[in-house]
Amino acid sequence: ELGGFEEDINKVKPEYLKSFVFERKLMPSTWIVVRIDGRHFHGFSEVHEFEKPNDGQALNLMNSCAVAVIEEFQDVVFSYGVSDEFSFVLKKDSQFHERHASGIVSVIVSFFSSKYVMNWKDFFPQKELKKPPSFDGRAVCYPSTEILRDYLAWRQVDCHINNQYNTCFWMLVKSGKSKSEAQDYLQGTRAQEKNELLALQFGIDYQTLPVMFRQGSSVFWDKEDPTKIYNDEREGKCRKKVVVEHCNIIQQSFWKAHPSILDEKY
Amino acid sequence: ELGGFEEDINKVKPEYLKSFVFERKLMPSTWIVVRIDGRHFHGFSEVHEFEKPNDGQALNLMNSCAVAVIEEFQDVVFSYGVSDEFSFVLKKDSQFHERHASGIVSVIVSFFSSKYVMNWKDFFPQKELKKPPSFDGRAVCYPSTEILRDYLAWRQVDCHINNQYNTCFWMLVKSGKSKSEAQDYLQGTRAQEKNELLALQFGIDYQTLPVMFRQGSSVFWDKEDPTKIYNDEREGKCRKKVVVEHCNIIQQSFWKAHPSILDEKY
Amino acid sequence: ELGGFEEDINKVKPEYLKSFVFERKLMPSTWIVVRIDGRHFHGFSEVHEFEKPNDGQALNLMNSCAVAVIEEFQDVVFSYGVSDEFSFVLKKDSQFHERHASGIVSVIVSFFSSKYVMNWKDFFPQKELKKPPSFDGRAVCYPSTEILRDYLAWRQVDCHINNQYNTCFWMLVKSGKSKSEAQDYLQGTRAQEKNELLALQFGIDYQTLPVMFRQGSSVFWDKEDPTKIYNDEREGKCRKKVVVEHCNIIQQSFWKAHPSILDEKY
Amino acid sequence: ELGGFEEDINKVKPEYLKSFVFERKLMPSTWIVVRIDGRHFHGFSEVHEFEKPNDGQALNLMNSCAVAVIEEFQDVVFSYGVSDEFSFVLKKDSQFHERHASGIVSVIVSFFSSKYVMNWKDFFPQKELKKPPSFDGRAVCYPSTEILRDYLAWRQVDCHINNQYNTCFWMLVKSGKSKSEAQDYLQGTRAQEKNELLALQFGIDYQTLPVMFRQGSSVFWDKEDPTKIYNDEREGKCRKKVVVEHCNIIQQSFWKAHPSILDEKY
Repeated sequence: ELGGFEEDINKVKPEYLKSFVFERKLMPSTWIVVRIDGRHFHGFSEVHEFEKPNDGQALNLMNSCAVAVIEEFQDVVFSYGVSDEFSFVLKKDSQFHERHASGIVSVIVSFFSSKYVMNWKDFFPQKELKKPPSFDGRAVCYPSTEILRDYLAWRQVDCHINNQYNTCFWMLVKSGKSKSEAQDYLQGTRAQEKNELLALQFGIDYQTLPVMFRQGSSVFWDKEDPTKIYNDEREGKCRKKVVVEHCNIIQQSFWKAHPSILDEKY
Repeated sequence: ELGGFEEDINKVKPEYLKSFVFERKLMPSTWIVVRIDGRHFHGFSEVHEFEKPNDGQALNLMNSCAVAVIEEFQDVVFSYGVSDEFSFVLKKDSQFHERHASGIVSVIVSFFSSKYVMNWKDFFPQKELKKPPSFDGRAVCYPSTEILRDYLAWRQVDCHINNQYNTCFWMLVKSGKSKSEAQDYLQGTRAQEKNELLALQFGIDYQTLPVMFRQGSSVFWDKEDPTKIYNDEREGKCRKKVVVEHCNIIQQSFWKAHPSILDEKY
Repeated sequence: ELGGFEEDINKVKPEYLKSFVFERKLMPSTWIVVRIDGRHFHGFSEVHEFEKPNDGQALNLMNSCAVAVIEEFQDVVFSYGVSDEFSFVLKKDSQFHERHASGIVSVIVSFFSSKYVMNWKDFFPQKELKKPPSFDGRAVCYPSTEILRDYLAWRQVDCHINNQYNTCFWMLVKSGKSKSEAQDYLQGTRAQEKNELLALQFGIDYQTLPVMFRQGSSVFWDKEDPTKIYNDEREGKCRKKVVVEHCNIIQQSFWKAHPSILDEKY
Repeated sequence: ELGGFEEDINKVKPEYLKSFVFERKLMPSTWIVVRIDGRHFHGFSEVHEFEKPNDGQALNLMNSCAVAVIEEFQDVVFSYGVSDEFSFVLKKDSQFHERHASGIVSVIVSFFSSKYVMNWKDFFPQKELKKPPSFDGRAVCYPSTEILRDYLAWRQVDCHINNQYNTCFWMLVKSGKSKSEAQDYLQGTRAQEKNELLALQFGIDYQTLPVMFRQGSSVFWDKEDPTKIYNDEREGKCRKKVVVEHCNIIQQSFWKAHPSILDEKY
């Protein structure tokens, strides 16, 4: 057998086989956003009986994985998550995996997935994980800070629109409508009408729903807030802390209060 | 707050932001190989005290994840693994994720990672998983079956070369040499000399080492072997079974015995 | 001024600026087809009063440029042209411009364009060239000879369909119909009906039209035909000749008669 | 024959064949630079006996082609040329050829090449064009105006360095040294030393050499200078004019004097 191998060794031409590798290299000096989305999470959430329209624990589990990503990969400077999706922003001049798209995306999505399984029991101590969670991912580059902020604003606007819709939809379903009746009912309604539906029919003031459901989760190193910097006695040095916040990232005020996040000089 | 949102909603231009997405589409009618490699697995194996040069249980855990990948993704027709790497071959005309490289790679690497954590306790019931395992991945296309088989042969030749080296290296280390002494000792030795070293100094006949260590693991649906096809009584139909084999995939004989694996018509 | 320059020289970082270059490398061991198409050739043909539906001299001029391309670039093994388009096939393992798409496409399209202007007077001695001709180009890879031949067959089928339509259209226009009347008249007619129209209304037997109009032009080194190999007395050696033929390249017979063209071993 | 065709028509699957086309799309909102370089221009300049180190007429011919490119392609906002290379800058949000790299590059390089042949006799009335000129081209994106200006500065610094070297080299050759002796002589000399060589040995004050040789050529619509805007009496409207200037584009002053060139709002 080994004899066979020895003959074969010389026939194999690694350089030729490597020549088929084509690495897509992301443009230098642009913000890299790695966005991951749950695969078949509709079924995943049913199997695990997630609460509708939002399962707070499932979202907290997602957030805990995002915190781990930010702690592990120092080039990730900001992250925004909603539902089963998370966007990770890498700093403009990151050289992570030599800016090869496949390397960057695969390592982040792989690490996130592992963490999701490892952290499961912390958030669902009573529930068994029945199916392996999986996420697809991709990298997109944005050439300016302005466009990057537009991207993040888009995700937060989407969070709002989807949450408002889903809140109405599930209230209707819980009140006895079938899913398709609920869908028909909401077809073409405006934001204002949806709020009125919630207020009048179900006595729900949309603004009082948990802010995490309404605004999603921003995860980042809080370098500005001194209360978030603690002394790590083991290592004898000051350390910053990754925070999870639920705040408006569309408006200028958030970014003015946290100038270091997208500071190109850091 | 919502008011702010409502104003902002109209400023966001999803189509513009989507226009930055650039999907690399893999060439049609070519074999796609997704190869994943453990990230920082040197450290990972030390933290978890894997046996050297090979930890049979760690390899079996890898193989169990590959079985799950093949069962989950029907376009994966063959898979070959060694150490902390696995190569998954997708059929030539697969339309999985519309042949977008990011989607294909991220979903497979994510699913594999989740399974690795979920299956850990089955293979290491006494050991706690201390760190999240992660893998990088990438897709490479090969335009002909001949070149694909050359790729697989290359991986198996690498398995052989690395295993022979590592077996010698760790025997020397276990016999008292430092790691750098062992390295120097092996520098420039040939296959023949390494076998003699094992035989004469350590009384080891290389050919008697476990075949999984020497030949890696091939994972695939065994459609040819009728004993691998069983009646699934629950679903009332014949089902094939994914098998893990340790055999020479360089030589023609394996592929002749399993014509359906790379049959382009399946 | 120079002083200013000297200061500036050190500020420029060529490596950084070169890092923005992203070369798309074409997959090894695949057939490369560079296809060029006339840009704004509708207007170009009107300005230069080309005959309709086909201008024999304009086609011969295109062919003369294709001959020059084949003589200049040894990796181009076959070329097929019709109307204002030409497809150039590069051999499977060509290393021309390191298989960088931009280099391959730009050099061929540039050379072809220069030749078009240089050869103009040979084909239109009475006509002044009033506008610069320009062509767009792109490279496409095909992983097997079978698919490459399907591509070439597609172009020849297109030649046939377009020529039949255009012949009818211009006969109708020359007989007094307006262009939009002619268009309406032909809307939805089948091949058979178009042939009958030509035969009955205009007394034209389609099969007797010049073969170049009906089958396009194939340009290649004729290595099989000994009459196409001549002694170059100046250089004292046997030389092959590039030929322009108008023949069916869909059927097997052409490729059987010219086995060397797509022979991967040449 | 037609019969054969009719059968074949149905076998051809255009959609399948088109699926192999992979268009590289350039990132939105980035400056696109198309750079073209003469192919084998060393030989081309020898065959046509261009003057050394610079042939004023050959440079003027290149410039005339760049003027034509700018007049033809309205998205090209600036162009800089030196020796046998030219860089064309397309505005940030250009949608030319849907930002497909192949289309953009091929059309510009093709048009430039045609113009080069057409304009030849205007610049070399006594010389026959003996060989078809050809250029390779490629597109590179720069995400900010600052980096784009660094790119242009780099090209002008290169112009200066090469011209100074070439001036020394050809003076040495013309004074009787062989080419390799001249090369050895200049090996490792600094800018200062080269200027001294020219001054002391050949009585040449580098600063008095033609500014086109020293600074290259910038080609652009001069929208700021009212003397460059003329009334086109035929069309009855004001028209701007493309100008060719030889000036320092590294320093801020040029761009301050011509704010419209890189103005993203135009």
